[in-house]
Amino acid sequence: MVTKDMMCYKNGAGKVDRNQGRVHSKQVYEATKEALDRRGVTIEEISKIVFEMQIAYNVGLTLEHCMESVESVLKKREMQHAILVGIELDELAEKKMLSEPLQQIVESDEGLFGVDETIALGSVFTYGSIAVTTFGHLDKNKIGIINKLDTKVGNGVHTFLDDLVASIAACASSRIAHRTRDLEEQNETFADITPEETAPETKIEGTTT
Amino acid sequence: MVTKDMMCYKNGAGKVDRNQGRVHSKQVYEATKEALDRRGVTIEEISKIVFEMQIAYNVGLTLEHCMESVESVLKKREMQHAILVGIELDELAEKKMLSEPLQQIVESDEGLFGVDETIALGSVFTYGSIAVTTFGHLDKNKIGIINKLDTKVGNGVHTFLDDLVASIAACASSRIAHRTRDLEEQNETFADITPEETAPETKIEGTTT
Amino acid sequence: MVTKDMMCYKNGAGKVDRNQGRVHSKQVYEATKEALDRRGVTIEEISKIVFEMQIAYNVGLTLEHCMESVESVLKKREMQHAILVGIELDELAEKKMLSEPLQQIVESDEGLFGVDETIALGSVFTYGSIAVTTFGHLDKNKIGIINKLDTKVGNGVHTFLDDLVASIAACASSRIAHRTRDLEEQNETFADITPEETAPETKIEGTTT
Amino acid sequence: MVTKDMMCYKNGAGKVDRNQGRVHSKQVYEATKEALDRRGVTIEEISKIVFEMQIAYNVGLTLEHCMESVESVLKKREMQHAILVGIELDELAEKKMLSEPLQQIVESDEGLFGVDETIALGSVFTYGSIAVTTFGHLDKNKIGIINKLDTKVGNGVHTFLDDLVASIAACASSRIAHRTRDLEEQNETFADITPEETAPETKIEGTTT
Repeated sequence: MVTKDMMCYKNGAGKVDRNQGRVHSKQVYEATKEALDRRGVTIEEISKIVFEMQIAYNVGLTLEHCMESVESVLKKREMQHAILVGIELDELAEKKMLSEPLQQIVESDEGLFGVDETIALGSVFTYGSIAVTTFGHLDKNKIGIINKLDTKVGNGVHTFLDDLVASIAACASSRIAHRTRDLEEQNETFADITPEETAPETKIEGTTT
Repeated sequence: MVTKDMMCYKNGAGKVDRNQGRVHSKQVYEATKEALDRRGVTIEEISKIVFEMQIAYNVGLTLEHCMESVESVLKKREMQHAILVGIELDELAEKKMLSEPLQQIVESDEGLFGVDETIALGSVFTYGSIAVTTFGHLDKNKIGIINKLDTKVGNGVHTFLDDLVASIAACASSRIAHRTRDLEEQNETFADITPEETAPETKIEGTTT
Repeated sequence: MVTKDMMCYKNGAGKVDRNQGRVHSKQVYEATKEALDRRGVTIEEISKIVFEMQIAYNVGLTLEHCMESVESVLKKREMQHAILVGIELDELAEKKMLSEPLQQIVESDEGLFGVDETIALGSVFTYGSIAVTTFGHLDKNKIGIINKLDTKVGNGVHTFLDDLVASIAACASSRIAHRTRDLEEQNETFADITPEETAPETKIEGTTT
Repeated sequence: MVTKDMMCYKNGAGKVDRNQGRVHSKQVYEATKEALDRRGVTIEEISKIVFEMQIAYNVGLTLEHCMESVESVLKKREMQHAILVGIELDELAEKKMLSEPLQQIVESDEGLFGVDETIALGSVFTYGSIAVTTFGHLDKNKIGIINKLDTKVGNGVHTFLDDLVASIAACASSRIAHRTRDLEEQNETFADITPEETAPETKIEGTTT
């Protein structure tokens, strides 16, 4: 629900402090990166998918541009929350800590179970329709690390993680497709910009949306 | 992910049995009803919201018609899975069994945490655009039991449940709005049909979609 | 907007007639079929895509089952409205009747124009997450008639139509994936049912949702 | 469709020019503002809705902050395209230039016609789940100019426009809710920033996504 948590506590000189009992954005961001790391997913592996999806349309695109785009996607709150929830459910399933029948459904990655895609799609939507179709494509064709996660042998449960990785890659690809257009209108290509210029909006304060 | 679990095991006379290790639809349905019950949400309470949303446009609509519509919504797989996941997360948060910082985010029902709405929206979408706008309205205006869940004192965590109830009510309302139109085209109203005729498609086999 | 058109006119013996000035469902359905036909898209061509997407997972699936599934999708209001709007825009663009710059954007099927996918996705959502990922896959990989529409030479504008066809095929595929599961739980496959039993809910009155 | 328009034309010194035959972003932006203006919708009227939705949660929020947020939303491509298509359809319906039965459906703003909401939702999604619920609320409760558009007498058709305005207002509200949080984490409120600092990301080049 959205409209709660509206109580304000006065703090010292009368300035309102609404942060009490709240998790700071930075902490959520760090936890997200740590969770991906713990599950064996690197920024580089995700960026390789992005590169493969976008190189055909982009002169001068490098893996470094793609890594910048992936980093910018991971700064979005919607994405961070989705990743934290999805990985939590995978890990709980690995530890057999979900109640039945959910435990069995998640553990076996049932074909008609769609909450994994639904959670991933929430973030995909924030990058527009190109992201949605790219996500669908990745979900069916399982490129790179997505395939590794989907077929992983052993005790690992990645029911949510493979969709989350597809979501991150789809969002970063869409970001690049839009950026390409901006560049083209200035008669430039990715060959003309440094990786740091890939997602310039993430470089300034006040934009952690 | 979607396209997995395609291994087939031969069974007896050569008939394919793909049910091995799978949870039966009936079991998922029962678990869904049981979960709502355990969390103190009755079909009747949800139906009251539906009735309030639809009575203005429907001559002869009764609470019984609304209860039938709610029951039909609970038969959909997407809805059942959403309910099982959401309630699981609420209950894990109550038991302090989520890892940080997710535990704190879910427990405090953070204003910018949107995975609860995202999971609920997955099912809402399956009932079309009327369901989406009705869901938004219920989410903001918290009618009936949604309000009770949202403001509940004590140790209860209902971060996901209030959105799930809004989702069920929105879907059942949309179902009725569409049914109304079918009736009107035959110059009938809800006054002309029994509650059992509210969602006739759920009465026949092969439609548990 | 949703909640309008609530005026009621008395008719004859006092029965309420809310159909005055309204287009009957049957008329919308006929117009939808006629529009697809006019644009050279047959049920059979769409069904071939569905068959290709689903045959790997379905023993005994025939083109006829797929045609039944496509027909059932075309009975949904959300789908009918999407088709009517999309084809209208394509035809207006062909006749150069849109105002600038929209005329040029639609005519050239701009890469970053996403309203075509957005309109198509509205219906896709009503068939759940499998439909969404299948739609994304078809949108990128352009199987069968989708490819023909996308690359058509001459004056034809199919900016919206190719997405609409992908949407219909994705919905019909999702319908079959869910039906498969229902059958499996009875230890049956598509080999055991007639095409008419593919989407049984469309055979009964009161279900034109 | 997404992946087309990939032909490149060499231009002069070998630099790739992909802009040939394309509408420039600036032109699309100007056309969007002009279309809203022509239909009698001002940035200020939309901003009043945003202010009403957000003032309860924001110390120091002014109408000027809201106007900045609305302006930033209008810079997004997805939003611009949605507005151009929606207003085009309204205007064509006013001139009786749509074919039947679409003409009658749009003209009478049919209760079960959902393409207007669908087109508006495409942009709403890009601002996350808060935008979706706010949109649903505005769609049902028709605040301010949305109500004027919905009930306008005479020949005006605003079937799409009222949803588009609700969409813009919902997106701008969500933008402010997220910005609020960024400020809070620095122990600031809107009282501490100028209107120009409301959506800082739109002030730098390369971010017209």
